[in-house]
Amino acid sequence: MTDLAKATNGFKIGAVCVSSRFNPARAEAVEGWMAEHYPDGPIRVVFHPSSFDKSGHFAGDDQTRADAFVEYANDPHIHAVWFARGGYGSCRVAESIIPRLTEVARRKRYLGYSDAGSLMAALYKAGFPHVAHGPMASDSVRNDETAEGALAWLTTGETPWLEPSLATDPRPAVAFNLTVLDQLLGTPLEPDLTDHVLMLEDVSEAAYRLDRTMFHLTSQPSIRRVAGIRAGRFTDVTPNEPDFGLTGEQIVEYWCERSGIPYLGRADIAHDRNNKVVPFGPRS
Amino acid sequence: MTDLAKATNGFKIGAVCVSSRFNPARAEAVEGWMAEHYPDGPIRVVFHPSSFDKSGHFAGDDQTRADAFVEYANDPHIHAVWFARGGYGSCRVAESIIPRLTEVARRKRYLGYSDAGSLMAALYKAGFPHVAHGPMASDSVRNDETAEGALAWLTTGETPWLEPSLATDPRPAVAFNLTVLDQLLGTPLEPDLTDHVLMLEDVSEAAYRLDRTMFHLTSQPSIRRVAGIRAGRFTDVTPNEPDFGLTGEQIVEYWCERSGIPYLGRADIAHDRNNKVVPFGPRS
Repeated sequence: MTDLAKATNGFKIGAVCVSSRFNPARAEAVEGWMAEHYPDGPIRVVFHPSSFDKSGHFAGDDQTRADAFVEYANDPHIHAVWFARGGYGSCRVAESIIPRLTEVARRKRYLGYSDAGSLMAALYKAGFPHVAHGPMASDSVRNDETAEGALAWLTTGETPWLEPSLATDPRPAVAFNLTVLDQLLGTPLEPDLTDHVLMLEDVSEAAYRLDRTMFHLTSQPSIRRVAGIRAGRFTDVTPNEPDFGLTGEQIVEYWCERSGIPYLGRADIAHDRNNKVVPFGPRS
Repeated sequence: MTDLAKATNGFKIGAVCVSSRFNPARAEAVEGWMAEHYPDGPIRVVFHPSSFDKSGHFAGDDQTRADAFVEYANDPHIHAVWFARGGYGSCRVAESIIPRLTEVARRKRYLGYSDAGSLMAALYKAGFPHVAHGPMASDSVRNDETAEGALAWLTTGETPWLEPSLATDPRPAVAFNLTVLDQLLGTPLEPDLTDHVLMLEDVSEAAYRLDRTMFHLTSQPSIRRVAGIRAGRFTDVTPNEPDFGLTGEQIVEYWCERSGIPYLGRADIAHDRNNKVVPFGPRS
């Protein structure tokens, strides 16, 4: 069945939360937006009920979150998987999820970013061909274009909401939250990014943390094999007293220069409503 | 010349700042404390003038901080080196410092913790035999016992202010700030901690960050070779909404269990006035 045919028959996007607690009101807002914009139901977004579980910081305990993701990924009646939100928690479940996924799961598209990057890295490492960094369900209702751009990619694999440098740079690309990727390095979740364009963004980090993280990231032999790094936006940098003297984007550029990794310029990704889609890996 | 003879002749401790800006008032307080407690000058603490330089966040730019450390480390008239304070910045200079150090530097004792851990790790990796985690110059004046315990180790290599588990566990030990050590993993600064007892502490981190850092740390093949981990104190954990459900110490224990690294109990180290001395490596 083609994507278009699927859409005609009701393309079902499964939203699931593998990270922090997810507010049911946010899911209702997404459902409300869908009802308004897709009233005849050619595309539907369904939230896994476990997404609203609570276990301390998390949307349910590790087993519950892993089970929910595996269920939606392997379900042939779910046509694509959308991460509900970020926060923290997917590194705790990613390694256990991968061996449970079937060929059905492998054919689907997965869209998310931020903390979801830990699981997306593991999916990409495991050879899943349709993983993209981009708006999550929780972001979509903030801006019509964001939601439509995300839904276009989820339903067809194409979108006008694509990170612009991808139009001219044919090299394989990935995008990550800097801190999240950094905390995967050397672990079983780290994907091989040799010859990839690596786009990085972050939010609510102190400049000295960004600097230290870039020291760590760019000191890794594995990361020195990337084709180059692009700096997304580094938003809501927490105050530093005295002023650190460099913005997040300048810190990325500084450590590229220091480590000999080509700095390729800016990327249109961030924790904001303009966060574009970056499909992982080679483009056809 | 023996340590005692050196002390009789005036044991000169060089304090130097390789991290964040250092307040001259704090140096004056240390000098005042020394004048009060060691009025005849058998032990003197001298601050490198560059310690008070300012370059954005840092106590002088990278070159200035590296030069100051190298000068004091290599100076035969300085008998031990005391890190002035932490903050952030020593990972930026550690790699360039090591090849500039002489045999004079190699024979000295070095005492510090927190951000200084990046440079201490590099010194230990380079085979410097007298490196210890413990109170810095800036901490010493908060508590007489802290200062005296630190000075005892700096001048003689022995101290009653020793981390208590060292009295009964003969295995080589190291101690680090969790986040600082984590950001050295896989870099040229990471020391080989095989068969070491690793003590960890941290301050002002969110519980979810501690959890993520412990995921990263305990996922490393290099760290899985330690003899075991002890949890120091995790102080001023920043608020988490909702409550994370585990203290810092419990997070350390959790990840030890999950990764198969022996959890050895508590360690008396922290960003507080009771921070004990942990000499790195095998004990004689």
